[in-house]
Amino acid sequence: MFQSFEVTARPEQGPPRLAMLRTQMQAAALDGFIVPRADAHQGEYVAARDARLAWLTGFTGSAGFCVVLADVAGVFIDGRYHTQVKAQVADVYTPVPWPETSMAGWLRAQMPKGGRVGFDPWLHTVDQIAQTQSALEGTGIELIRCDNLVDAIWDDQPSAPMQPAKLHPMEYAGESHADKRARLARTLVTKGETSAIITLPDSICWLLNIRGADIERNPVVHGFAILHDNGSVDLFSEPSKYAGLEAHLGTDVRLYGPDGFLPALTALRAPVRIDTGTAPQIVADRLGDAAEKGPEPCALPKACKNAAEIEGAAAAHLRDGAAMVEMLCWLDAQAPGSITETQVVTQLETLRRRDDGLQDISFETIAGTGPNGAIMHYRVTEETDSTLEDGHLIVLDSGGQYLDGTTDITRTIAIGTPPQEACAAFTRVLAGMIAMSRLRWPAGLAGSHIEAIGRMPLWLAGQDFDHGLGHGVGAYLSVHEGPQRLSRVSNVPLEPGMILSNEPGYYREGAFGIRIENLLVVQEAPDLPGGDAQRKMLDWRTLAFAPIDRRLILPEMLDTDARDWLDNYHREVAAKIGPRVTPAAKEWLYAATAPL
Amino acid sequence: MFQSFEVTARPEQGPPRLAMLRTQMQAAALDGFIVPRADAHQGEYVAARDARLAWLTGFTGSAGFCVVLADVAGVFIDGRYHTQVKAQVADVYTPVPWPETSMAGWLRAQMPKGGRVGFDPWLHTVDQIAQTQSALEGTGIELIRCDNLVDAIWDDQPSAPMQPAKLHPMEYAGESHADKRARLARTLVTKGETSAIITLPDSICWLLNIRGADIERNPVVHGFAILHDNGSVDLFSEPSKYAGLEAHLGTDVRLYGPDGFLPALTALRAPVRIDTGTAPQIVADRLGDAAEKGPEPCALPKACKNAAEIEGAAAAHLRDGAAMVEMLCWLDAQAPGSITETQVVTQLETLRRRDDGLQDISFETIAGTGPNGAIMHYRVTEETDSTLEDGHLIVLDSGGQYLDGTTDITRTIAIGTPPQEACAAFTRVLAGMIAMSRLRWPAGLAGSHIEAIGRMPLWLAGQDFDHGLGHGVGAYLSVHEGPQRLSRVSNVPLEPGMILSNEPGYYREGAFGIRIENLLVVQEAPDLPGGDAQRKMLDWRTLAFAPIDRRLILPEMLDTDARDWLDNYHREVAAKIGPRVTPAAKEWLYAATAPL
Repeated sequence: MFQSFEVTARPEQGPPRLAMLRTQMQAAALDGFIVPRADAHQGEYVAARDARLAWLTGFTGSAGFCVVLADVAGVFIDGRYHTQVKAQVADVYTPVPWPETSMAGWLRAQMPKGGRVGFDPWLHTVDQIAQTQSALEGTGIELIRCDNLVDAIWDDQPSAPMQPAKLHPMEYAGESHADKRARLARTLVTKGETSAIITLPDSICWLLNIRGADIERNPVVHGFAILHDNGSVDLFSEPSKYAGLEAHLGTDVRLYGPDGFLPALTALRAPVRIDTGTAPQIVADRLGDAAEKGPEPCALPKACKNAAEIEGAAAAHLRDGAAMVEMLCWLDAQAPGSITETQVVTQLETLRRRDDGLQDISFETIAGTGPNGAIMHYRVTEETDSTLEDGHLIVLDSGGQYLDGTTDITRTIAIGTPPQEACAAFTRVLAGMIAMSRLRWPAGLAGSHIEAIGRMPLWLAGQDFDHGLGHGVGAYLSVHEGPQRLSRVSNVPLEPGMILSNEPGYYREGAFGIRIENLLVVQEAPDLPGGDAQRKMLDWRTLAFAPIDRRLILPEMLDTDARDWLDNYHREVAAKIGPRVTPAAKEWLYAATAPL
Repeated sequence: MFQSFEVTARPEQGPPRLAMLRTQMQAAALDGFIVPRADAHQGEYVAARDARLAWLTGFTGSAGFCVVLADVAGVFIDGRYHTQVKAQVADVYTPVPWPETSMAGWLRAQMPKGGRVGFDPWLHTVDQIAQTQSALEGTGIELIRCDNLVDAIWDDQPSAPMQPAKLHPMEYAGESHADKRARLARTLVTKGETSAIITLPDSICWLLNIRGADIERNPVVHGFAILHDNGSVDLFSEPSKYAGLEAHLGTDVRLYGPDGFLPALTALRAPVRIDTGTAPQIVADRLGDAAEKGPEPCALPKACKNAAEIEGAAAAHLRDGAAMVEMLCWLDAQAPGSITETQVVTQLETLRRRDDGLQDISFETIAGTGPNGAIMHYRVTEETDSTLEDGHLIVLDSGGQYLDGTTDITRTIAIGTPPQEACAAFTRVLAGMIAMSRLRWPAGLAGSHIEAIGRMPLWLAGQDFDHGLGHGVGAYLSVHEGPQRLSRVSNVPLEPGMILSNEPGYYREGAFGIRIENLLVVQEAPDLPGGDAQRKMLDWRTLAFAPIDRRLILPEMLDTDARDWLDNYHREVAAKIGPRVTPAAKEWLYAATAPL
């Protein structure tokens, strides 16, 4: 479905729904109830029927939660959403800055005499509940497991998504699910675990080489799974979705309805591995003493892409790059003042959808022109839609879900004549992006150890940006995938095959935004003459190919190595993408990729 | 005392002493006994009477331990000492690579049926014992507290050091000890702690504005202290050392003999803070349930130098820089092949000692010429003393303990005509050293987040070095001082006033070594035009001033910013140090600091 620009928030629905919820709380003898944004799978997107926070409050952000008490209802939102929440929720809701204020801290202040606060144990992770409970010790405030009180009052709650699962072919997966299951089972045997619980849909899809469409922008099937130490899997997911996949799944993957999941947990022999950072509290409750804390079994293997997945991603990026080049060519042909952000978004999606392999865009396109570019997670709506004016920069952050790979690319483009200070900042952002792309580093380092390389040019000018330098990306799966990140908080060592974004930016509130993003894959670095003989080092292979706007570059601010990198990159863009675009776009591309 | 080059190891003493120790073990019904390098204060240097590891085994390295069992005695040493240990210990001792092999892992392998292993609870930290005990769970191997069995057989064990304590004046300390005590007491009150245990001599000296000479190269007095939540201190240290300091200490610092320490612990009211990473196990034993784990109370306040300490360090560095310039001038006048490393060491110490403020050198000077330069922690002895030959690089790493500050500086100097590949590596090391010196970064980052900046030029050439980029340095205290470090393992945020070394290097085994080191102090960075208005940023002030050998630089490998930095630095060296040296040295200095 094409991206919509509808304003979905209806603040006036909030008060009556809140009143109904409070009636439910009273009936259940609760003094409070927590409504999270998350579903049972803790993903970034939720199905319509799981959008409880938006339904109750009107707030549509991608993170946050509401805590409803008898006389106050706090909507906890992070810095990205301070403005948005005010436009979306009625004044019966009180925005609470989070994580500056924790749920426990807020509850202590609101309930000095203690009280009973209900929560749905499917929607909160084991760690979340443990942390909050520990922070509430001695306050008399209790967290009480209960049915979901929002579901009880949501008359027209949509039904669960029922999209069919489909096979993810070996050509793209590169490893059979039997081999993956056997490989992961060995890690259980090594640790003496009988089984492991998997509650993340993208992990299940990766493990079983299937994809689906239960969630927009994410090609996953909803479900839960138990991996046994013999490599067999119990899959709990709507069986009708798997019609025709019986042979693919085989006899070592046993398919059950979702209702079979909880009873199956009770039957498992100890020790059973669960990842307390993602598993719902109800899973730990059912496992009881059998639960043993451990890493999510698929997370690291899924992150380290094999050759087929890497080549798939590379191929998808070439087709995606062709769509980007057509887009940038089209954009350059529009006079300043003649088009708006929504037209940009729709045009880009139209161009991407010309590719037969495209299944969906990989997230809602960010197209922020002028001051809107400074809003880091901007999504254009009919209300905010702005015209691309002379002197604007437009930040265009988008991607596609192709059968062979997931893309995510950002370019910042000058509209008319860009202001000099924007060019200076753009050149610094570019210098950081290039420094990271050129980097070579000793094996064993994590994102926290090298992220500074991509920020240093901004730092030296007294500037910085308030998001990570990069995130992991899946293989025709989630566009945000862990465990690796290019971030000061990530201590997961980078390993060959990991795909990450490299996306420094700069944001001048009320003026302009800048972000430049390519996806990269970690690889073993070739030996260099004169280099240390025994030192294992890693470097990047760039996957994304699209021109970087030369009109925004102040070449004298780049050193020779950076200029050489850019000229080489542009030469490669022209060679790889030129043959894939229309003659007009090709002509434009050759000009856009000329040496500095 | 001048640095000695004597070969102190006497391997032949090891076997009879080992036999005596095993007799003691038998008498105590022990199957093993642990002899650590550390004393009760866990410092880098120990007094002669605490050099139990060296006395028993012959091994004189600055870290390691020996585990003596009935039929095997493992000497655990890290990578720095693999060669040295073979020369120093008799073959009744088995070198064990550590930390690759842990004590617990080794014990499990050596004692499959379990056994009783004794240890002196003064010489091991709470964390060390807890970790080993946890790793030994289920093995039947027990750690048993006992008297020190080495002391029992060491007939001529030296007596405890008895050097007088002296007052560290306000001019250099910058804050009275009453103010320090009151400031730290407030942190106890905030946490509801009645008191805190201090077992680190440099912490006690910092807190009470005293210095001493109980340990070579470290101006500390041995002792233990208890800080109470009212700001008063019980000091347990040989009272005769404090003659004349009664007025300085005042009535809120109560002085007791060392024997009073353990009984005083038993009398404390809970909760009492101890730093389990540095406090001896016996302290936790005496405190029992009253102990509460917390940070060492002086560590962070001591690390953040005040204005008087920073200006003291700056002043000390100017005088130290003058000695360095005289030294470098002298060195350049010596013909290749005419002098040896020990002459270099003695000449440098002689020049440093011309300064009345110098109390001692701050560590044994490292002077490694040619292949010896590649040995990272090389200390020249009569046996290894080598001639400075044409084509050598000499690594000269040294420092002084001045009343107003501690210095630590490394320069690498060309002897005759240096090889081209050494110049290339030197230029990369310099590029990293300059990149770190020029850095500006957002407040809140730790060493792990920025260390890569100092290594990147080497990484890009497939090279790296196997030590941290930098360590903290005290104010006329330890030359290695925590908690901050420029290292991938350090997550302590850098704060204004912290002094750190910036010392990238490169080591080509059997050929040459390179290291360039300046001390820097963290400061609030000035606002820059066009910089982010609300973003608090930090940068460095360089403390050390001495020329960097231009004959080893390949200028075309440095970018303009780096060349500018070096020329400016050299201009400053000439201006600050020129007026402080002899006419001949001044003439040499002006030539050595000419622009590239």
